[in-house]
Amino acid sequence: MATSPNSPTLRSWIDISPSSDFPIQNLPFGVFKTEERGTRLGVAIGGYVLDLYAASQYGFFEDLTELGAAQPKVFRRSSLNAFLRLGRPAWRAVRQRVSELLRHDASELRDHEEAVRACLIRQTEVQMLRPVKPANYTDFYSSIEHATNVGSMFRDPANALLPNWRHLPIGYHGRTSSIVVSGTNIKRPNGQRKAPDEAAPTFGLSHQLDFELEMAFVVGTGTTLGSTVPIGQAEEHIFGLCLFNDWSARDLQSWEYVPLGPFLGKNFGSSVAPWVVTLDALEPFRIAGPVQEPTPLPYLAHGGAHNFDIHLEVALTPAQGPETTISRTNFGFMYWSMAQQLTHHASNGCNLEVGDLYASGTISGPTPDSLGSMLELAWRGTRPVPLADGSERTFLLDGDTVIMRGYAEKEGIRIGFGEVRGTVVE
Amino acid sequence: MATSPNSPTLRSWIDISPSSDFPIQNLPFGVFKTEERGTRLGVAIGGYVLDLYAASQYGFFEDLTELGAAQPKVFRRSSLNAFLRLGRPAWRAVRQRVSELLRHDASELRDHEEAVRACLIRQTEVQMLRPVKPANYTDFYSSIEHATNVGSMFRDPANALLPNWRHLPIGYHGRTSSIVVSGTNIKRPNGQRKAPDEAAPTFGLSHQLDFELEMAFVVGTGTTLGSTVPIGQAEEHIFGLCLFNDWSARDLQSWEYVPLGPFLGKNFGSSVAPWVVTLDALEPFRIAGPVQEPTPLPYLAHGGAHNFDIHLEVALTPAQGPETTISRTNFGFMYWSMAQQLTHHASNGCNLEVGDLYASGTISGPTPDSLGSMLELAWRGTRPVPLADGSERTFLLDGDTVIMRGYAEKEGIRIGFGEVRGTVVE
Repeated sequence: MATSPNSPTLRSWIDISPSSDFPIQNLPFGVFKTEERGTRLGVAIGGYVLDLYAASQYGFFEDLTELGAAQPKVFRRSSLNAFLRLGRPAWRAVRQRVSELLRHDASELRDHEEAVRACLIRQTEVQMLRPVKPANYTDFYSSIEHATNVGSMFRDPANALLPNWRHLPIGYHGRTSSIVVSGTNIKRPNGQRKAPDEAAPTFGLSHQLDFELEMAFVVGTGTTLGSTVPIGQAEEHIFGLCLFNDWSARDLQSWEYVPLGPFLGKNFGSSVAPWVVTLDALEPFRIAGPVQEPTPLPYLAHGGAHNFDIHLEVALTPAQGPETTISRTNFGFMYWSMAQQLTHHASNGCNLEVGDLYASGTISGPTPDSLGSMLELAWRGTRPVPLADGSERTFLLDGDTVIMRGYAEKEGIRIGFGEVRGTVVE
Repeated sequence: MATSPNSPTLRSWIDISPSSDFPIQNLPFGVFKTEERGTRLGVAIGGYVLDLYAASQYGFFEDLTELGAAQPKVFRRSSLNAFLRLGRPAWRAVRQRVSELLRHDASELRDHEEAVRACLIRQTEVQMLRPVKPANYTDFYSSIEHATNVGSMFRDPANALLPNWRHLPIGYHGRTSSIVVSGTNIKRPNGQRKAPDEAAPTFGLSHQLDFELEMAFVVGTGTTLGSTVPIGQAEEHIFGLCLFNDWSARDLQSWEYVPLGPFLGKNFGSSVAPWVVTLDALEPFRIAGPVQEPTPLPYLAHGGAHNFDIHLEVALTPAQGPETTISRTNFGFMYWSMAQQLTHHASNGCNLEVGDLYASGTISGPTPDSLGSMLELAWRGTRPVPLADGSERTFLLDGDTVIMRGYAEKEGIRIGFGEVRGTVVE
């Protein structure tokens, strides 16, 4: 019987630093580009990308019947979408096979010098692209700490959570066109805003540019219009997870958002990490979520462990300064699970599409140093966030780079997400 | 010099009823399917579809350099998107050429019996498809009458319009996956709802299913992320318009919509008409919109005629009953123009994509018989709408078919939009 790709005893013949996000137990999927190779699908391993198209051409996936007639061309696309459409058996077969090719005692690839040169490229030599072409993008609002903080600041601290919040995972549709890959500069948006003490709105550059630390999951298996997804089957529709920064212009947002929700305060740009960590690789990190009170309605009720213990960090680097970690939190704090989000989303018959991105909403923890947005960290400008260079921030300045990182760790195995970074420019 | 395809003196050699939506001055674009031909682009003319792929194969577009190497295959797609990407010169050239082929004094197609059989198919013999694959879908809220009515019902009649409403065209992102073509049944959605007088939410079939009469415009020319669209150039990005029904489950919507806007109350289905009437064909019907007070900020200010005088009707047919027209209104009532919507949408650098659908929001007029939703017509259930069969409605019942129609008319020329219809089932 084949060894599970998650087995903590596995090692690779590739030299991988213990602090790498990409040990052999991870094997996240992404899309890369080089001048020579064009656009291809790849898997991260240590400091390398395994070129799936090259591996397919060398015949390493020849016996994977799950791929049907799709290979090799499914590995030479500009997004994971076509690969995702092959379904979970295909995703699993490729990850399993890649694991077998890379394990320390496997010689098939290791001893084939030409194939090694063709299949393995240093990550520093490739350009990473947006991993999926998002078919649809939904942003949830599933951290009780974040929703409480925002409600306290903008509404009423005594009734910070709106009456519906504990009954359903609140979400809204976002914009897919402006989702960009990590490393893309974010232009400070112009927009209309009016502070409560101003007589009339003005139009100009946002003064309250913010980030939101989120995780997004990628839908790998869609549904048809009119069908629903029982909560027990929700995770079967999820391919994997990636880091996500939902950049927000708070001044635009607070003026425009009633009554139909966020719009131009958000859709000037969202950043997604290039590597999608499979739900399979995260199996060892399942934990129970917070107790939900009141108990959700039956269609949203699930026992067991549907949250994931993933450490998350936000760092900020000014144009000329050193990096400061400004938040440390955990994806496990989320009140509503991904399964609940997905089942709720489909509960009215709305069809899920392969390549859909569903983001968690800002991930905030219970302590002042575990908050997922500058709005909360600096508490609406009242407690500026100190940086290592001696400066401080209430919102983002031009030249600031925001870097989000995440990893799960157990028994010495670190399943990392790489990073999503973006620099504010204008 | 070539005659304008809009010229009111043009006639076609095809026999067209004076009440047809599709005289030679219209020539709207759509996508159709037959078992024999597969999926193709077409133009509506009287009771026929002109098969653009067939016309291209017969060489009728041979001299259209604007099409480059794209023909004939651009006419054998499942959406207009690839055709739209060719740009306005190509759209105009095809419409002009089709007009020339169909005018009464043109013999090239008329006298070529085999080509006529290949190029013209009765509309009753084709299946119409969704005209565009929506890249993104945004729904605005641009009727001052609708916003005032909803604000009066759900908030405060004395302050029905929220403070931002007269300063910017409020909008939100909708769901593209569930946009279906006219004729597709709409399954009554399940969902979570809680009336103010209920202690806890319940999950079940919506009891307050509604329609919203809207017009949607199709973006034909996109922008790059970070760029904006000056108001004077906004209309250059619009290909055309079509009828749109933004089905809404009011009970789901009112429980879920704070603070992030409509979600499951809307995304179970939206219906789009199969024919997209070009902005070019609508040129004769420009009118000035309502006076905007206060004057919009400079980025949204435009003089001149940016609204369109389009008569709109909503009819309801019960499962066993005759049709009743329950609303008559006009697209010219809209407070915010399409140009203002588009420029506002791009004002923060959000990139527009070819195939984007931007819907107007419910189109309501100033009188009780010109309202664009059942919510307003029946005033939140307090004045039931009588139907021809003696029954009445406060919301939609299973088996009800909602049909929306629209046309512009001047000098005896009627530029029609066909219809968007859908039947509520479960």
